[in-house]
Amino acid sequence: MTPLDDHVAPTRAERQIAFLVDADRLKGVIRQTLLCDGSRQENSAEHSWHLALMAAVLAEHAVGAVDVGRVVRMLLVHDLVEIDAGDTFAYDTAANADRETRERLAADRVFGLLPVEQTLELRALWEEFEVQATADSRFAAALDRLQPLLNNHHANGGSWRAHGVRRSQVLRRMEPIRHALPALWPTVEAIVVHNCSLGHILDDVRASDPSPT
Amino acid sequence: MTPLDDHVAPTRAERQIAFLVDADRLKGVIRQTLLCDGSRQENSAEHSWHLALMAAVLAEHAVGAVDVGRVVRMLLVHDLVEIDAGDTFAYDTAANADRETRERLAADRVFGLLPVEQTLELRALWEEFEVQATADSRFAAALDRLQPLLNNHHANGGSWRAHGVRRSQVLRRMEPIRHALPALWPTVEAIVVHNCSLGHILDDVRASDPSPT
Repeated sequence: MTPLDDHVAPTRAERQIAFLVDADRLKGVIRQTLLCDGSRQENSAEHSWHLALMAAVLAEHAVGAVDVGRVVRMLLVHDLVEIDAGDTFAYDTAANADRETRERLAADRVFGLLPVEQTLELRALWEEFEVQATADSRFAAALDRLQPLLNNHHANGGSWRAHGVRRSQVLRRMEPIRHALPALWPTVEAIVVHNCSLGHILDDVRASDPSPT
Repeated sequence: MTPLDDHVAPTRAERQIAFLVDADRLKGVIRQTLLCDGSRQENSAEHSWHLALMAAVLAEHAVGAVDVGRVVRMLLVHDLVEIDAGDTFAYDTAANADRETRERLAADRVFGLLPVEQTLELRALWEEFEVQATADSRFAAALDRLQPLLNNHHANGGSWRAHGVRRSQVLRRMEPIRHALPALWPTVEAIVVHNCSLGHILDDVRASDPSPT
């Protein structure tokens, strides 16, 4: 089936199909976030679909001149490096230390499967998402924070409860929403307050706090 | 958390979030197609992601003046009705009889969660996909046929073997690719021939065939 068997260069379509078949493996990369119904952890492919749909629906609230079509394409490919590098849980400091190196190697291989100008285009979208210097990438990142918040909220605390995550960690993690999607910030705050009140997000304990009397 | 608890009309953002949370349920709609590695059946959310990525990558091969951004949005929402109506297996004639009625009711409810002009826009994209009268929808439908073919091929026959599907059924099902994505038709034919030779797709038995002597 593959032209490489016959030692001839693959056509453009053959390179594209090889990339798209490889991409199927993203469905097997498991994230910490649960589905809203709490039935199981979601995978990075269905997560990417959810984010792309969110971009199409929430674009009117984005700050700055945002090209929704570009944001959608960016979100479709933003997690593809996880095919090789795996998903790194946001609140896992140790695993995040070498994340960049692992993901850069993955980007070389995964996007390199495509014809060269598509390699450059999609890899550039991935880099743009990582660097966070444009309105498009900031809107995309805000959605990437909002979706797990919504899912954790509906899944009875989800990965917050599973990992004992604290209020200050969640608020720091959600910060991109405050700047890139300010219309949704009151929703974020209300969800955090509600989940703290239920004990699904832990209150912060500070050494400097006065002891209760 | 919901404004309806306080008997006030939901804001635009609240309607959009309600739609996006409801959409999460598409991750629980199971299709007959297996992942390429054969490990499990795929769901309609990750399938929709795969198709949207295919549209972005294969656009150059589409017949006619195709707006890739529209096609991607169409593919992101094309299966949302399955949240209520379920996935109907392509080769199941009985289940396909009342599919249209079930899906139309589902479209009313699912897209109706959104602010009215977004209800109209996304529902129109879904209708356009169903009616198959435009270059955009024909390209989208061709991808919706090509992806399960690629997955079945890589998953050792996948749903073809599981359901004893015949060559004529597969070729009829793939017909939209011949017209909307002709550059990929030789790939389709090669995959069908290969899978017939392995017995993963059954040869057709015709009553009019002469008996072997």
